[in-house]
Amino acid sequence: MHCIRFRSAPTIHSFAAIAGQKEAEGNFGRFFDRIEPDPALGEKSWERAESRLQAETLRLAADKGLLKVDELDCILAGDLINQCTGSTFAVRGTDVPFLGVYGACSTMAESLLLAGVLADGGYVQRAAAVTSSHFSTAERQFRFPLSYGGQRTPTAQWTCTASGAAIVGKHAAAPYLTGGCIGRICDLGVTDTTNMGAAMAPAAADTISRYLKATDTAAGHYDAIITGDLGKVGSPLLIELLQGQGIDISAVHFDCGAEMFDCDKQDTHAGGSGCGCSASLLCAYFLPKLAAGEMRRVLFCATGALLSAVSSQQGESIPSICHLVEITG
Amino acid sequence: MHCIRFRSAPTIHSFAAIAGQKEAEGNFGRFFDRIEPDPALGEKSWERAESRLQAETLRLAADKGLLKVDELDCILAGDLINQCTGSTFAVRGTDVPFLGVYGACSTMAESLLLAGVLADGGYVQRAAAVTSSHFSTAERQFRFPLSYGGQRTPTAQWTCTASGAAIVGKHAAAPYLTGGCIGRICDLGVTDTTNMGAAMAPAAADTISRYLKATDTAAGHYDAIITGDLGKVGSPLLIELLQGQGIDISAVHFDCGAEMFDCDKQDTHAGGSGCGCSASLLCAYFLPKLAAGEMRRVLFCATGALLSAVSSQQGESIPSICHLVEITG
Repeated sequence: MHCIRFRSAPTIHSFAAIAGQKEAEGNFGRFFDRIEPDPALGEKSWERAESRLQAETLRLAADKGLLKVDELDCILAGDLINQCTGSTFAVRGTDVPFLGVYGACSTMAESLLLAGVLADGGYVQRAAAVTSSHFSTAERQFRFPLSYGGQRTPTAQWTCTASGAAIVGKHAAAPYLTGGCIGRICDLGVTDTTNMGAAMAPAAADTISRYLKATDTAAGHYDAIITGDLGKVGSPLLIELLQGQGIDISAVHFDCGAEMFDCDKQDTHAGGSGCGCSASLLCAYFLPKLAAGEMRRVLFCATGALLSAVSSQQGESIPSICHLVEITG
Repeated sequence: MHCIRFRSAPTIHSFAAIAGQKEAEGNFGRFFDRIEPDPALGEKSWERAESRLQAETLRLAADKGLLKVDELDCILAGDLINQCTGSTFAVRGTDVPFLGVYGACSTMAESLLLAGVLADGGYVQRAAAVTSSHFSTAERQFRFPLSYGGQRTPTAQWTCTASGAAIVGKHAAAPYLTGGCIGRICDLGVTDTTNMGAAMAPAAADTISRYLKATDTAAGHYDAIITGDLGKVGSPLLIELLQGQGIDISAVHFDCGAEMFDCDKQDTHAGGSGCGCSASLLCAYFLPKLAAGEMRRVLFCATGALLSAVSSQQGESIPSICHLVEITG
């Protein structure tokens, strides 16, 4: 409970990922559709830069699918900026119906799951799932002014400047959305906002174990079980939590946060994070492999830490969530 | 485009609304299920108070439907607090899968529409749509510290301390969800954050006119066309914008923001606002009338201003949206 099987296997019609310069210098730089060397993308604020990043990624995904953005029936998007303005300002230039979602860094899985529901149920022909994050919008909103140059803890993660967009519809080619699982909020009492991998690992364990049970499958059934941004600290915790339930995903587990950067060389401590981290690696690396038949079946399990700067200043712990979609080649 | 017809007419199984003392003294005070005279609800912060308000409203809606919250398959919720912590902290105590939505004050219509899709498509048995707002969390986040005692402009609205919750499922009794319309983002360039009714009116006009055209119905086909919180300034603008398209809704239009308070006596200027404004009046006033057969058919069109404190300080205009659900008795 509560897992979803899609009856008609909606397809991911087209997809795109754009990333910043630091991400380009990481482990997956050569896979992105485009690199933006200017972190401001020519805009006068970081927030405008993030909106432009998201809008351009969506446009590129449409272009790659030989569509115009205005031919979409619906855009599902969200991001980390207060009131999700990264997304609303990105979509404002279009005439497309818009559903705002908030799942923090789990947004890409949540929006893909809902896009799958809308397409599978016949409510829309084509829906886009889009998200983004930007180092500079996140850093100043959640942590310190950029110019403060604050020290980062060893468990801290680096918010990626990246965006991913995928257009879901009925199309006769892989990759297919075959199912999904809506996450439950888990909170084991972690209050350290510089250790979000630890806060999110229980949510990932909960969703993955529920999905494997509901589908009566083992980890080995999948080419990869992709988590969002647990990073170097949260990833081994996830493995351990699942081992405690008799589930061993270690052979197929891939965490986008842990893998995005060469952490030692790039000084990113416990790895990458942000909605754009897993969204961009899904669209740049995994979806092409599924489309090409190089992978047959993956679980995309994006994780989100549902805190705010106010909640953590008030001493609250960090509720977390993990939404899951199964994608087949 | 893009309007949805539900094939199986999912029902609103049960519903509840809780409001604060000022709302109790307004025009609809006697309709709320419960009044909370303590604006802090016994909690130590306004944010905790809002989460408790939302959690209690959800529990009351479940109680009224002879359900436990943990029997739900999914909760869809969102609110105005940064990163939607009003909702995530409200839901954290449950074991129910959670989908966070962000539509600002349009949240109740967005979450009802998605709950309808999930239930109609057979993806869940029962999904709750919930939202809340709280005067004190909104005021200090979007405007001034409460203790500052800032003057409010004549066009300003008063964020309601209120919450509404509705549980959607398959049940053999009215009210039914019969259709809906996903809003598009409209932005005519209004930058005055103390006049959000004017910013949101074009979004309401766009959605209502699209839905009437798609369903080939006239305004008189409905007992009420309920908008969210356009208030005393935005409501006549909506009427005027639609008249310009040859649509006259004036005989059946009801704006929750304009009607919530006795504005002159209660010093609420242009009226009420906040996600909880329209959500609470829907659940307290309209759904009971539809359930009792006193109304046959309404359009619930909640409007949202998709700005943030940062976007307005950066001089951006206010993108707005209006989602619509049709509910029948």
